[in-house]
Amino acid sequence: MNKLACYVGIDIGGTRIKAGVVREDGQILANTAFPIKLDAGREEGLAHLYAVIDRVIAESQARDQIVGIGIAAPGTMDIPAGIIFHPFNLPGWQNLPIKQLVHERFQVPVVLQNDANAAALGESWLGRAQGTSSLAFWTLGTGVGGGIVLNGQVWEGAHSHAAECGHMIIQHEGGPRSDHGIHGSVELYAGSLGLKRRCREALAAGAKSSLRARIETEELTPLLIAEEAKKGDALADRLIMETAVYLAIGTVNIMHVINPAMVLFGGAMTFDQHESELGRRFIAKVREEVKARAFPIPAQRTIIDFASLGGDAGFIGSAGCIRSHIKRLHHEV
Amino acid sequence: MNKLACYVGIDIGGTRIKAGVVREDGQILANTAFPIKLDAGREEGLAHLYAVIDRVIAESQARDQIVGIGIAAPGTMDIPAGIIFHPFNLPGWQNLPIKQLVHERFQVPVVLQNDANAAALGESWLGRAQGTSSLAFWTLGTGVGGGIVLNGQVWEGAHSHAAECGHMIIQHEGGPRSDHGIHGSVELYAGSLGLKRRCREALAAGAKSSLRARIETEELTPLLIAEEAKKGDALADRLIMETAVYLAIGTVNIMHVINPAMVLFGGAMTFDQHESELGRRFIAKVREEVKARAFPIPAQRTIIDFASLGGDAGFIGSAGCIRSHIKRLHHEV
Repeated sequence: MNKLACYVGIDIGGTRIKAGVVREDGQILANTAFPIKLDAGREEGLAHLYAVIDRVIAESQARDQIVGIGIAAPGTMDIPAGIIFHPFNLPGWQNLPIKQLVHERFQVPVVLQNDANAAALGESWLGRAQGTSSLAFWTLGTGVGGGIVLNGQVWEGAHSHAAECGHMIIQHEGGPRSDHGIHGSVELYAGSLGLKRRCREALAAGAKSSLRARIETEELTPLLIAEEAKKGDALADRLIMETAVYLAIGTVNIMHVINPAMVLFGGAMTFDQHESELGRRFIAKVREEVKARAFPIPAQRTIIDFASLGGDAGFIGSAGCIRSHIKRLHHEV
Repeated sequence: MNKLACYVGIDIGGTRIKAGVVREDGQILANTAFPIKLDAGREEGLAHLYAVIDRVIAESQARDQIVGIGIAAPGTMDIPAGIIFHPFNLPGWQNLPIKQLVHERFQVPVVLQNDANAAALGESWLGRAQGTSSLAFWTLGTGVGGGIVLNGQVWEGAHSHAAECGHMIIQHEGGPRSDHGIHGSVELYAGSLGLKRRCREALAAGAKSSLRARIETEELTPLLIAEEAKKGDALADRLIMETAVYLAIGTVNIMHVINPAMVLFGGAMTFDQHESELGRRFIAKVREEVKARAFPIPAQRTIIDFASLGGDAGFIGSAGCIRSHIKRLHHEV
């Protein structure tokens, strides 16, 4: 097994960098998280990134087998060019040609990828979607992001903007409105801000709920709503089941565009997934509402489930992205 | 040029079969339409189809160069298996293994494709989308269908149900409802039935319009509404510009899923395209409304236009589908 190719995967998140080394056979040889230096400028931030890559390569004890580096980052970017435009949490990195810089430093092929796209590829390579021909992946958090994998490759889109599924419009008239003037997108309903807005509206309308007392002393969060739902609070439960409905509608729209074999839900706001009764009811509600609205054949056959790699999907997926890139170069796919 | 491969393309429509032969260099060697025998049973219908194929091959004067046959049909199907499930206009053809039967009769490779998918490939091979890496294609008629071409191949979806874009939900609450209980889909607003419904609602609400007098003696059709819009009737014009808005919202949703390089509009309800002031204002309205709602980069860069092959897109595209299939077999793509 010593000769198998190994891939570095980097996932630059809002508060930390996850880094790992994944071998061709899927074995994870290193897996570490580092706090991100949010106030670091461009040079210091890059030096930190290089140190993270050096460190994880050393941890992997597979330096000679490293054939490439994949980097996942949030925000807008030109994926083929490898340039990050506006990383919302790293102001010093605007218009950073990260692919070129990391390549110059490490002298191996490098690819840049959107973080949700990378996570989708991670699930497709080594997670819940292993073996599926096509995957649509939702990341549920503050925002609602997405990733699409077709025939084992991330579908990036013509302008690196594919799978912004949270921005699909599901209520063009009278829906909630964002600061940017967009109406009725999936994210405005089902993102954590949307969930909190719906909660505040229900409380303002007089709904009885154990949430009312809690938010007198605590910040309203999706986690707090989930806690009260698990304790049997009817409003909290309704808010989460409504979230499932909005995501089901978004899922139907994705299905009626690309008809994927599988749709997965990952990210922080997945209610402990199959581990909790709430999570199981959430995914069951998504499935039920999709069946009620989609064409009969995809409604019956599309597999809808939680993702399985959790917070590791991003670095595994970015390792997978450089793996795919190298295989394409070698015409192996 | 005599040695170039030639492809038979068949497009089975609601009232006619369009058939042609297209050479590898894009030259159309035969192009004929035949009335469809709607009341024919399975055997007679198949015999008619075989005769159409024989006839068009003879017309092409390229019998020795024919390397395959592509067939486009409406309704649900299993595309890879080549089985038509429910052709709405040919009841005798239910569960017809058309790919196998045509292959047995003509002894060349055969593929089956959804008609809108085939038309999208036609536009991508020899029409407005030539040279683009990715295309989303809307067909506007009684229904609102679609086709998606990625990297020169039709994206069929995992269950042959990709690009049913008219069934995306854009108003999940309070939108128009279909007989099947689906709410607020693009088609229910922007299909010809949706356009007529909006017209009747506006007239019932008392809108002044030259349409009111016309429909006392004539059937309300999209063509009639377009005629009155061209004469300057404000309601008719508003109804068509609203159609553009609904299609723009659907287009934004497609863009936020696959981020195609180009989005084209084809089909009967395209208001004479660039040939009429109404058509030019229609496509301008789609572009304007997309720009107002989509992410900035795809909003700026996505090319939105009318398709260019008209009613020939289907047979050209089905010829293109068998061409792609044969090239894949030979690993040329």
